[in-house]
Amino acid sequence: MVAVFDKTIGIPTIRRLPAYLRLAKDLQQKNEKTVSATYFAEILDIDSIVVRKDIASTGSLGKPRIGFDIEELIDNIENFLGWNNTTDAFLVGVGNLGSAILGYQGFTGNGLNIVAGFDVDPQKIGTKIYGKEIFPIDKLYDLVPRMNINMAILAVPSKAAQDVVDKLVDAGIRAIWNFTPVKLKTPDTIVTQKEDLSSGLAELSVKLSKVLHHK
Amino acid sequence: MVAVFDKTIGIPTIRRLPAYLRLAKDLQQKNEKTVSATYFAEILDIDSIVVRKDIASTGSLGKPRIGFDIEELIDNIENFLGWNNTTDAFLVGVGNLGSAILGYQGFTGNGLNIVAGFDVDPQKIGTKIYGKEIFPIDKLYDLVPRMNINMAILAVPSKAAQDVVDKLVDAGIRAIWNFTPVKLKTPDTIVTQKEDLSSGLAELSVKLSKVLHHK
Repeated sequence: MVAVFDKTIGIPTIRRLPAYLRLAKDLQQKNEKTVSATYFAEILDIDSIVVRKDIASTGSLGKPRIGFDIEELIDNIENFLGWNNTTDAFLVGVGNLGSAILGYQGFTGNGLNIVAGFDVDPQKIGTKIYGKEIFPIDKLYDLVPRMNINMAILAVPSKAAQDVVDKLVDAGIRAIWNFTPVKLKTPDTIVTQKEDLSSGLAELSVKLSKVLHHK
Repeated sequence: MVAVFDKTIGIPTIRRLPAYLRLAKDLQQKNEKTVSATYFAEILDIDSIVVRKDIASTGSLGKPRIGFDIEELIDNIENFLGWNNTTDAFLVGVGNLGSAILGYQGFTGNGLNIVAGFDVDPQKIGTKIYGKEIFPIDKLYDLVPRMNINMAILAVPSKAAQDVVDKLVDAGIRAIWNFTPVKLKTPDTIVTQKEDLSSGLAELSVKLSKVLHHK
C-alpha cells in the first residue's frame, strides 16, 4: 500500500469510495469510457454534489457534459485506497466465519490477498482450506516478518481474541480487521477495524418484528 | 419472530445484544451457571452500567454478588431479538459473496435459516450450493408466499439490486438484509439493513497507509 492521500478526507468519503469503484468497474466491463456523477448519485442515492466532492478528493475532476474518464477514475480510487497494490493478509481463526472469509473471492477486487490461515485446532493445522494452508498460531512469529505481512483478519472466538491480538502485535502485524465482537486493546501504532454481522442481523430482526406485529 | 419488545430500546443496545449472547453461550458450554456484568464489561470494553441497562431491557435483572442466571439471560436476549424462533430466509444472488453466506454456518446461532438461493445464471439454477437448492429469480413469486418467507438476503450485483428488490417486495418479502452498496427504494412497510464489508476494508486500508508512512 503506497497511497498518497489527503489527510483531511473524512471517513464517510472513504467508506463510499468502494461503491463508486465497483460501479465504475462494472461499466468498464461493458466497454463504457465515461460516467457522470449523476449516474453514481442515482444508483447510490447520494447527492451528486457529494459524489463530485468524494471523487474530486481522489484526483478525478471530470469534464462538463462528458463526465469522468472511467479508467482514470478507477486508477485514482484504487491508488487512493492503496488497492492498486495487493495487500497480503493472514486470516486467524478458521471456524465457520473464518472459512467463509477464506472462500470468498471478492476481496481480491479490493487488493486484498489472504495468503494463509492460522488456527489452534490440530485437525485443521497442516490441511488446506480453499487452497490456503493452515498453520498453528505460534507460526505467526516466524511468518509475519518473513513474508512481510502487515494485515491480519481476526475471526477467532471472543474469549481468545485479546490473546491472539497480543501475539499478532508481537509478531509485527500493523492492521487488524476484527470480525469478533471484542473491543481490542492495541498499542497506538496498530490500526483496527471492527465488523460485526450479527449486530446488523439483530437490528433487522427487531425491525422485522415491529412490522410483522403492526400489520 | 414473536419477540415482545419495548419500543424505547435504542439501536445501540440492540446492536450490543448479540455480543452478550455469544459470550453467555460460550460460558454455558463450559457449564457456568451465572455471569457478572463486569465480565461482559471487561471483555467488550463497555461500561458495566451500560451492560446492566442493556441486559435489564431484555428482562434479566441479576442479583447482587451472584450476577445473571446464564440460562435466563440467553432466553431473554433470544426472545427479545426473536432468535428463539428460527427465521427462514431466502438468499438472492449466488455469486462469490452469496456463496460464502450460504456456506457460513454461524447465522443459525442467530436464529437465521437460509432455506434456498436464487440467481439468474442458468448454470447455477437447479444445482445445490452448500446443500441449498438454487432457483430462478421469478420463482420468488411462488415460493415466498407458499413457504411464508419474510426475510431476504440480497447479494446481487449493484446494477441488478433495485430490480430484484422490486420483485422481492412484490413477492411479499418484509425484511431485506442488503449486502450490495446500493441504497434501496422500498415502501414504508418493508425494513432493510445494509452491510458493506468493502467500506470497512477501505477504512482499514487508509489507516494502514497512514501508520506505514509515518513509521
